[in-house]
Amino acid sequence: MRLGILGSGAGSNMAAIAEQCASGALPAVVTVVLSDVENAGILTRARDMGLSATFIQPGQYRTKLDEAAEEQFVRVLKEAEVEWVVLAGFMRLIKADFLKHFWHKVINIHPSLLPSFPGLEAWQQALDYGVKFTGCTVHIVDHGIDTGPILGQETVPVLDADTPQSLHARIQEAERRLYPAIIHALAMEDIRIQGRRSFQK
Amino acid sequence: MRLGILGSGAGSNMAAIAEQCASGALPAVVTVVLSDVENAGILTRARDMGLSATFIQPGQYRTKLDEAAEEQFVRVLKEAEVEWVVLAGFMRLIKADFLKHFWHKVINIHPSLLPSFPGLEAWQQALDYGVKFTGCTVHIVDHGIDTGPILGQETVPVLDADTPQSLHARIQEAERRLYPAIIHALAMEDIRIQGRRSFQK
Repeated sequence: MRLGILGSGAGSNMAAIAEQCASGALPAVVTVVLSDVENAGILTRARDMGLSATFIQPGQYRTKLDEAAEEQFVRVLKEAEVEWVVLAGFMRLIKADFLKHFWHKVINIHPSLLPSFPGLEAWQQALDYGVKFTGCTVHIVDHGIDTGPILGQETVPVLDADTPQSLHARIQEAERRLYPAIIHALAMEDIRIQGRRSFQK
Repeated sequence: MRLGILGSGAGSNMAAIAEQCASGALPAVVTVVLSDVENAGILTRARDMGLSATFIQPGQYRTKLDEAAEEQFVRVLKEAEVEWVVLAGFMRLIKADFLKHFWHKVINIHPSLLPSFPGLEAWQQALDYGVKFTGCTVHIVDHGIDTGPILGQETVPVLDADTPQSLHARIQEAERRLYPAIIHALAMEDIRIQGRRSFQK
């Protein structure tokens, strides 16, 4: 299974996935890593792992890609013959013109138990709300914000002593377990989606 | 700690709490059980356990108590010298005129991991959304619907083979563990609330 990974940050999920691909634990290959942030850690980290890593100028908007950037992301992903697009801390919305090229083949990991706390800084939202459990969610990307069919979730306890930082770190540990596990199931064609529900075959 | 329990259904949470009070596991006493449904299982079950159990005519509305009913609930609870009002499957909203008499002393258990799936049939909502984990939440009742500060949560997995019935049953098992545990912590004055967050002392 050929993966393209998009990220804007340090690239810890990308690294967790790429390491498992390299070791053979994950029957997949990371063919390209793309970022909208020129000096993002994910690019240097990918290059250190011997992966193709490219910055693409995102254009004039803050929360999405402009038309030219969108086209370039799609072109590079197509040229790399990517089958699944893996969002790993990619901080811009993926819109319809991008999605139509990879419909139901773009996945994202979100740092909460969706549908609780969509959007930004979900760990801070969880602390502010006062929940006792949060977690992370891998889902198919559709036209909404963090709304697509859920492929997997892992729960994470919120502790009395938690700060935003400590809770975020605990969620990220769960992400680095969950994301490769779900990609593994996709590679084995072990997941069937029916409406909004997903099932292990 | 003197408890008044309000319910509209079979009374399984009431029974779990009352049994632990009777055995001494819970340092509390159920002083009165009230229902808005004349033939509700909770009333016969409470009487079978030797508890005072009373039907109160709820009045003309479907989803709340009318003014006279509200006054009667408050009066009976005050006469029984109830300190904490425990909602256990009580299907009507508790409004401001009731709450002001027991402010932050009314607790509810909801069959989801709030803030996901407030309102009715939360297990069906969870299945429809396609989450992999749901659960139950004990919270303070405030002016919103299932919005008050959270005292405790327990997670419950959603299984591929789940029907609404099987999932609901698994959540109810969790409820019968969580609700007595949280009431125990309240009785021991082990819970401190600060804003929306609660902490174990």
